[in-house]
This record gives sequence, C-alpha cells and structure tokens, in this order.
Amino acid sequence: MKIVESAPNFSEGRREEIVREIIAQAEGVKEVWILDWSMDPDHNRSVVTLVGAPEPLIEVLFKMTKKAMELIDMRVHKGEHPRMGATDVIPLVPVMNITMEECIELSKKLGKRIGEDLGIPVFLYEKSASASHRENLSEIRKGEFEGFFEKIKDPLWKPDFGPAQVHPTAGVTAVGAREYLIAFNVNLGTNRIEIAEKIAKAVRHISGGYRYVKAIAVDLKEKGIVQVSMNMTNYKKSPLFRVFETIKREAERYGVPVIGSEIIGMVPIQAMLEVAQFYLQIDDFNVNRIIETKILEILAKKLEGEEK
Amino acid sequence: MKIVESAPNFSEGRREEIVREIIAQAEGVKEVWILDWSMDPDHNRSVVTLVGAPEPLIEVLFKMTKKAMELIDMRVHKGEHPRMGATDVIPLVPVMNITMEECIELSKKLGKRIGEDLGIPVFLYEKSASASHRENLSEIRKGEFEGFFEKIKDPLWKPDFGPAQVHPTAGVTAVGAREYLIAFNVNLGTNRIEIAEKIAKAVRHISGGYRYVKAIAVDLKEKGIVQVSMNMTNYKKSPLFRVFETIKREAERYGVPVIGSEIIGMVPIQAMLEVAQFYLQIDDFNVNRIIETKILEILAKKLEGEEK
Repeated sequence: MKIVESAPNFSEGRREEIVREIIAQAEGVKEVWILDWSMDPDHNRSVVTLVGAPEPLIEVLFKMTKKAMELIDMRVHKGEHPRMGATDVIPLVPVMNITMEECIELSKKLGKRIGEDLGIPVFLYEKSASASHRENLSEIRKGEFEGFFEKIKDPLWKPDFGPAQVHPTAGVTAVGAREYLIAFNVNLGTNRIEIAEKIAKAVRHISGGYRYVKAIAVDLKEKGIVQVSMNMTNYKKSPLFRVFETIKREAERYGVPVIGSEIIGMVPIQAMLEVAQFYLQIDDFNVNRIIETKILEILAKKLEGEEK
Repeated sequence: MKIVESAPNFSEGRREEIVREIIAQAEGVKEVWILDWSMDPDHNRSVVTLVGAPEPLIEVLFKMTKKAMELIDMRVHKGEHPRMGATDVIPLVPVMNITMEECIELSKKLGKRIGEDLGIPVFLYEKSASASHRENLSEIRKGEFEGFFEKIKDPLWKPDFGPAQVHPTAGVTAVGAREYLIAFNVNLGTNRIEIAEKIAKAVRHISGGYRYVKAIAVDLKEKGIVQVSMNMTNYKKSPLFRVFETIKREAERYGVPVIGSEIIGMVPIQAMLEVAQFYLQIDDFNVNRIIETKILEILAKKLEGEEK
C-alpha cells in the first residue's frame, strides 16, 4: 500500500465551526485517515494532518480546498503568519512505498484541478517547482494575499495552473511535494543566547552549515536556558545525528553542555532508525526488519485485497 | 488491536513436507500472520514466526501442536540441539497494546488445552513459570526427551498441565510468556579472541554483568576479527545502548576499536527508539509519535471494525 502524508494549512484559526466543516471533507473517506488537527488563533491558521492512499488523498484535498474557498474570505483575514490563500499551502510527502517522483506527479494533478475547476491560481513549490525561484515557499508567499494582485502580473510569478489573477476571496494556493519536515530542538546548559546564536549559525544552510537545516536561537527564559531550534527539511540528506553531533562539538568549544533535545510532532520511523544505526555502528539495517513495519505491510495488503 | 508474537519450535528440520503441514494450520486464518519460517537440518528443528490477535493466535498454536504430535515421532528424532518434544517450546511475546500479564494468562490457557486435550505434559517457563527453577528453558530441557521419562516422576518436575507422564511420541512441551529476544553482535577490530572473551564476561549476567544479557566470544576467522555475540533477553531493562557503550569502553582499555555491530532477525520498534532517544538525549518520546505506528494503529482499528 502506498501512503502519502499531507498537512494542508487553512487561513482560519479562530472560528472552530469553519475548521470543522473543512475537516468534515476528509471524514469517513476510504483509505484516508486524519492523524491530527490544530487551530492557532494568533496566526489565525489551522493545520490538518492526513495520511492516505494517493488518489483518495488528493480527492479529499481538493474537496477541502473547495470548502475553504466557500467559507474563508481573505479580504477580511488578519493573522500574524504570512498567508496568501484560504488554502494557503498543500504539501505532499512520501511516507511508505512511494517515491518523491510519484508525489510530484500527484501535486501537479491536484494543482491542475484546483486551478481549473476552482479558478484559484496554483504555484507548485519545493520538489514540484517549475523554476528554482519558486522552490522556497516563503519566496512565493512574499507580498501575501494583498500584494499578490500586483505580483501575479509579473511573468516570473505566472501561476503554474489556473488563471493569472488572484481569486477575489480565496487568494492563491501553493501545492508541492517535499520531504518530511522534522522540528528538532537542542537545549544548551547556559542562558547565554549568543552561544545558541553562534551554534545555530554553524549548522544552518544559509550561513554555511548543513544543506537541509534551518536554525535559529531561542531564549527559553522561564527555564533559564537557550535552545538551537531547527527545521530539518530533509532528514535523509542532513540527518539528525550528524547535526546533533556538530552542535555538541560546537557547544564544547564554549564549555557548554547539551542538556537535552526534543522532536516536535510526528516523525517517520526511518529518521529515528538512522540515529540508532549511526550510534550502534550498524551497517546493514532496513525498516522491514522492524516488527511493527512488517505487520503494517501485512495489514495494508490485507485491506487492499478486501477493497479491490 | 492487541498483537502477540510467537515463534514455536518444532523438532523436525529435514522433511520439508512435514514442516509445511504444520505451517498450513496457520495459513489463511483471520488475524494471524506468518512473518517467517526456517528449517535447520543440523539441529533437525524448525522455527515459525507468527504474529496475531491473542485468541486466534493461540487457537493456531494449539492446532500446530496437534499436527506436530501427529507427524513427529520423538523416539526416532536425532539432532544437535537439545529437545524434549515434537513441539518443543512455544513462547508468547507482547508486541502491541498488550501487557506481559495478559500474555502469561494466554500461555496458561494454551498450556491447559495442550495438556488436557492432547495429553502432552506442559511446563510453563519464563514469566509464566510456576516456580523459579522452571523459569529457565534450558533447566526444563535438561535430560531431553529420553531423560524426561525419569525426570517427570520427580515432584519438582511435575508438569503444570496434562498427565505426569511423557507423551510416548510427542514428549513434553514448554509454553511461556517472555520479552522479545534480540540477537545483537558487536565486532571488534582485532583477531585476539581473549579480548572478546573478557568483554563478553564483563557484560553478561552470569559473570556479573547486565541482568538480561547472555554473551559469548566468537572468532570470525574468515574476517580476521572477533565478536561479542549476545542474546538480549529484556531490551527494556538491559537496553542495547547501555550494553554497547560498556563494550566500547571495555574495548578501549585494550586499545581495540568497535568496528560495527549487527542485529539478527526482526526487532521491535521500541528497542531502536530507545537507542535514538538515549543518544539524542530526548527525554519525552513515545512510539505513538512515529507516523508508521500511528497508521498501523488506524489500520488495525479499521480491520477490527470490519471483522466485528
């Protein structure tokens, strides 16, 4: 069974009844499961985490986008997070038995439908991007909903699908395939923020560090410590253990210990297995050697058989 | 969904048609899945690895035991491995959503049925043992099939279920709940076997090491290295990372590097997660934060719903 994950962002984080109506599009659908959802009133934004078989999942994502278009009016939307559409962004992440290439194809199929059937301009981002300046979501989002009425006229920002004009109430939407993003924070045994800043700088891509690491320094005042807070955008190529070891070594230079780390949210088994393999110096290991993964494979096959 | 694992051992490792007839008892049964099976002609013994929901699984194990009784005659059995019955041993291992206590209850239920319906004496072992001298399987096995005709008369070795006399062709069987056993080997960058012997001694329970570790030194002559070869009998209480770190430190004393390690066969996700958590210094993590485990939970619930 192929499994894809998606965590679409909707520009509504205050009126629960509206978020629930959007989520209702995913409920009870065969081969699509809701893992989690949350509303953030400050950002006025909600995130729904779904997993499912490829085709049923993009069907559900289309319906959710349509419902968000009907219920959210970007002209009156206020919130702290940069945003550009009622459905702001739809990532597609390969989880099991599916390649990145297949997820790119799915993102194009979904984007085309949103553009053509709903009249919402769609920008492909990350691995699906049609040009390098469109890979980074924050580059696409620049100017936000209000600025897009001008931005979209620039040939550089012609949408990949749908009309070359902003949908009056639903704005524009980004759709793209990407690797699973892991939020990984490392706590330092000091309250000196400048040390966390130097270490964040050492590991993050933008200032010369690991290619798939975004990092900032955070002051955890109530705990009296500082933190290197990271987004790991490709744990396969910039793995957790390597970044962690670099942070430990850099901290040592300042006589500061690493006192712990944390992973926020869900994480693919492969990311944790790679950590275990590195430290135990295991060369040859494979996710199919995990009992639970093997059972999952058997159950998925069983379900597939029953549903055909 | 509750999932239990079992790897029953049968005293036949040469005639494939007989092993296949025993395995056939497990095929196509709802909520029971065969993960693996293998025959060992030298030991004249086969092992079948099954997972399943508790009740269907013990039903299958009973049928396999019955079939082995019908097809295997211990009076003519020869093989290198110590053995005492056609079905030699049936372990029950908690894998998912089930406690050790529930597995102990299951082992008693299965043992009672084998004893009463098949007339085979059953000894409960490991966590299910009715006395401490019966916990260790090799203590029960001592004397093997041939010696049991005398041994069973000793009140200390009265079986837990079934008649106090050896089944004439099927011998006696051990049934018990235990933790998952992990075969874990650590390779040393030397060919000096005495160093592997000293380190094996340092970590194994019997000579003062970790409570749930059995270890021997192995000479891998073709590779020109030596190995500490271990059975980890309770990875929850004597975890892989702690034993690995001890081995690394002891090897250092002799100026010998650890050059790799390996895990043989399947492993529960929890064992690997604990390794990752230790090295990344993550305090608070839980198997439900793994995407694949969450999907497994959802699929299992779905199947349960459909089958009720």
